[in-house]
Amino acid sequence: MNTWFTELQTRNVSLGLRIEDVLWHEKTPYQELAVLQTEAYGRMLVLDGAIQTTIVDEFVYHEMITHVPLLLHPNPKKVAVVGGGDGGAIREILKHPSVEEAHLIEIDEKVVEASKRFLPEISEALDDERAKVHFTDGIAWMKEARDYDVIMVDSTDPVGPAEGLFVPEFYQSIYDALGPDGIMVAQSESPFLEPDIIQRVMAGVSKAFPVARLYLASIPTYPSGLWSFTLGSKKPLQKPRQATFKTRYWTPEIQTSCFQLPRFVEDLIR
Amino acid sequence: MNTWFTELQTRNVSLGLRIEDVLWHEKTPYQELAVLQTEAYGRMLVLDGAIQTTIVDEFVYHEMITHVPLLLHPNPKKVAVVGGGDGGAIREILKHPSVEEAHLIEIDEKVVEASKRFLPEISEALDDERAKVHFTDGIAWMKEARDYDVIMVDSTDPVGPAEGLFVPEFYQSIYDALGPDGIMVAQSESPFLEPDIIQRVMAGVSKAFPVARLYLASIPTYPSGLWSFTLGSKKPLQKPRQATFKTRYWTPEIQTSCFQLPRFVEDLIR
Repeated sequence: MNTWFTELQTRNVSLGLRIEDVLWHEKTPYQELAVLQTEAYGRMLVLDGAIQTTIVDEFVYHEMITHVPLLLHPNPKKVAVVGGGDGGAIREILKHPSVEEAHLIEIDEKVVEASKRFLPEISEALDDERAKVHFTDGIAWMKEARDYDVIMVDSTDPVGPAEGLFVPEFYQSIYDALGPDGIMVAQSESPFLEPDIIQRVMAGVSKAFPVARLYLASIPTYPSGLWSFTLGSKKPLQKPRQATFKTRYWTPEIQTSCFQLPRFVEDLIR
Repeated sequence: MNTWFTELQTRNVSLGLRIEDVLWHEKTPYQELAVLQTEAYGRMLVLDGAIQTTIVDEFVYHEMITHVPLLLHPNPKKVAVVGGGDGGAIREILKHPSVEEAHLIEIDEKVVEASKRFLPEISEALDDERAKVHFTDGIAWMKEARDYDVIMVDSTDPVGPAEGLFVPEFYQSIYDALGPDGIMVAQSESPFLEPDIIQRVMAGVSKAFPVARLYLASIPTYPSGLWSFTLGSKKPLQKPRQATFKTRYWTPEIQTSCFQLPRFVEDLIR
C-alpha cells in the first residue's frame, strides 16, 4: 500500500515509513496517541507525531537506557522509570536478578493501555509482580521519592508533557530521591540534530551530580539515527558488573565503548 | 520554502530533506547527478536518487573510511580510492604524512567536475600534487594495479555502476593489488536495513583476506544512520599508530571502539 507515516524530525528533516494499517488512534488528556503497522519496523507507537518505539528497533533503546546504568551500580534493588509507558525499560530492568522493585511513573494511562494491547512483546513485564505502575506526574512523584538505586528518565521530547523533565530542578530532585550509590540516566536527544538539548541536559545533570557522562547508541527510527543518554552518579564510576542475561544490542564491550564519543560530541559537552 | 528532496532508502523507508535550491542536475553517461542546497545539511551530492555526501556530515564517512585502515598500516605510502569522486577520502588520506601518492579511480568524470564546482571544501585536495585522478573503470584498473599499501572502496550502493565492486572476484583483485602489509576497506551499507549486503561483503573479503573485520560509524544522511565498513588485511592487525592531525569524528578511542559491534551485528557476520 502506498500510504506513509511521516515524522517531521526537525523543521527541515523528515523520516517516512510505509504503513500497512492504523491500528489505533486517540486523543488522550495529554497527547495524541497512535499505533501504526509499518512495513519496515513492525508495530510502532507514536505520540504527538513523534515515533516512540517500534517492534523492530526497540531493543536498542531499552537495553541501553537500562543495562548501562544498572551494571554500574553495585547492587540495584529499587529502580524507577519516569515516562516509558510502553514498559520496555521495565522489561529490561527485571532481567537483573538483584532488582526487587521496578517502579514506572507514567503520566498518561492511555500509553500503558495501548502498549499492553498492541505491543505485548514490549509491555509484557508490566504484569510482573516486581513492577509497580504509578499513573501520576513524574515531577511531583520525584519530590516524595527516596532511597532509589537507579532512576531512568525515559521521556518524550522536551516539548509538551515532558518539558519539566529537562530542567535542573528535576535533576536535583532525582539526586535527592537516590540512595548513596545512586545513578540516574536521561535520554538526551541527537548530537547531530539537537546539540543544544544535550548541552542543557549535561549542564543540569552536572550541576546536581558530581559525576556526569554522556553515552551513545544507534537507533534508526530516532532523528539522525544516533541517540544520546546522560548519566549522573553520586559516586565515581566503578568497573561495570558482569551480565548473564541475553541481549541483542548491549555487549560487555559496548558497555564501555558507548562512552567513547566522536570528537564533535566531546567538544559539545566540554 | 516547502520544497523537499526525498530519498527512498528502502522500499519502505524514506528520508526527506527540505531544500532551498537545486544547484545542478544532469544525466551523466553513468548515472543521474544532482547537487542540492539543503536546509539541514548544506550542499548535498545525489547520484541516482541516493545521497552521497553533504557538507554538514561528510566528515564522519571520510574520516572513518580512511584513518581507521591507514593507522593500522605500518607505513602507508601508496594509497588508492575506488569511487569517491567527491574527493573527501583523498583529502583525509593526504593528512597522513607518510602518504606519497593517493590515487582516485572514478568511473564518472562528471562527479569530480560537480564536486570541484559545488563542494570545494570536500574536493579541494584533488588539486594536491600527491593526488592522481584516473577516470576509468575500477574493476579493470584493479587488475593492473600492484604494490598499493591501502585501498578503499568508496562506492555507491551495489546497484548500477558499482555492482561489480561487491563481488568476491573484485576483493581478490584488491588482494593482488596490495603489497605484503596491505589493507583494504569497503563501505558495506547499514546493518539495520541491508544485513544481507554486509554478509555478502564479509564473505567475499574473508575469502580473499586472512583477516576480515567490520567496523561502524554514525552517518545521519545514510539509511538508518548506522553505517558499516568491512576491512581486510593480509597480516594480523597491529596496534594502531598515533595520529597528529585534527579530526571531527575520529579519535584514538574511536579507532578501537568502532570495532565493538552490537550483538545483532556480531551475530550477522558470525
